[in-house]
Amino acid sequence: MRFDLRVYVITHAGFRGRSHEDVAQAAVAGGATALQLRDKESAGRALVATARRLVALANPAGVPVVVNDRVDVALAAGADGVHVGEDDLPVADARRLLGPERIVGASAGTVEEARRAEQEGADYLGVGPVFPTATKADAGEAIGLDGLRKIVAAVRVPVVGIGGITVENAAQVVLAGAAGVAVVSAVAGADDMVEATRRLRQAVDLALRARGGGRP
Amino acid sequence: MRFDLRVYVITHAGFRGRSHEDVAQAAVAGGATALQLRDKESAGRALVATARRLVALANPAGVPVVVNDRVDVALAAGADGVHVGEDDLPVADARRLLGPERIVGASAGTVEEARRAEQEGADYLGVGPVFPTATKADAGEAIGLDGLRKIVAAVRVPVVGIGGITVENAAQVVLAGAAGVAVVSAVAGADDMVEATRRLRQAVDLALRARGGGRP
Repeated sequence: MRFDLRVYVITHAGFRGRSHEDVAQAAVAGGATALQLRDKESAGRALVATARRLVALANPAGVPVVVNDRVDVALAAGADGVHVGEDDLPVADARRLLGPERIVGASAGTVEEARRAEQEGADYLGVGPVFPTATKADAGEAIGLDGLRKIVAAVRVPVVGIGGITVENAAQVVLAGAAGVAVVSAVAGADDMVEATRRLRQAVDLALRARGGGRP
Repeated sequence: MRFDLRVYVITHAGFRGRSHEDVAQAAVAGGATALQLRDKESAGRALVATARRLVALANPAGVPVVVNDRVDVALAAGADGVHVGEDDLPVADARRLLGPERIVGASAGTVEEARRAEQEGADYLGVGPVFPTATKADAGEAIGLDGLRKIVAAVRVPVVGIGGITVENAAQVVLAGAAGVAVVSAVAGADDMVEATRRLRQAVDLALRARGGGRP
């Protein structure tokens, strides 16, 4: 399934005592085009409840919600799909369990990983870390804009850049060929989350227009 | 789905460097009637791989494998079902995702929890801790054989006792009305895992015969 990756906000909880719902609500208000529930701490029952609340507040605004890792939680909550990393369920298994209509996204840091995820049925790829990031300690070395460009050129599915992306560098990520930017702290850790999302959206939309709307 | 709960071995990894597969193999050889993969540490991809290996070694011997908590892992690995605790996916969600044919078990420590899990569609209940246990730090106060009897009397689905069960006290658990015993350390931590399973099976079978095979 295709969906709008322009401003893809990951609702990490715990920044300034903010909940997943706090981040999601602000992101939707600010013009986020997609949400990911990422919560590695909570158990299944709590995750299903959180995912249901995110779906209820985002879907009426036309914003899809994907759940990090847990395909069962996505299915139970009626979420729009999942995002799986290298340690999570294989893309092919996630696709089989979710069917063709729901979203399956995958993380990729190399051309090889990207091609494999695409072959296994990923709808989009989260590619990075584009820039150094403190949010995800295990994210590995930054691949830079050049690394991002190489992966974009190697696959047909859309790519969302992730890792160290801010309002200041979002345009570069899009000009390097990404369909959008995925952020954690740039929204969840911002003074004003709505405004931060709005500025990211403006930066991405401007860059997409500058590059002619299509892929480079 | 009904299945044989007599000797239900939970393949906790890490006792004496033993893997899930080590425990499962020995348990099947010793006459275990059911296996549960319980692994709260591993990520989804590793869990699916482990679950597949357990299914491949247990199912040919007629032994079903249920996966603790992760419905998606159970589905991806083709396991026989899941076991959900109070913090995991709700029983009703697990049932909906797994369909009527697979096993959904649930944990219960009180008559209320047991009745709710039964109503939501659990096939069996893991009830305890019957005796004090060191394996599960968050398991709560032991309910004793009286607590077990009360829960057995309150539900129609079969009950497997769990918590501090050994070869020495397994018969009492069955005589209190349980369809079988669920163990972690009594097998995974035993000097001889095959022999430990065999002795548990003998104790349970003797007690079932003594009580007339049916429920008390």
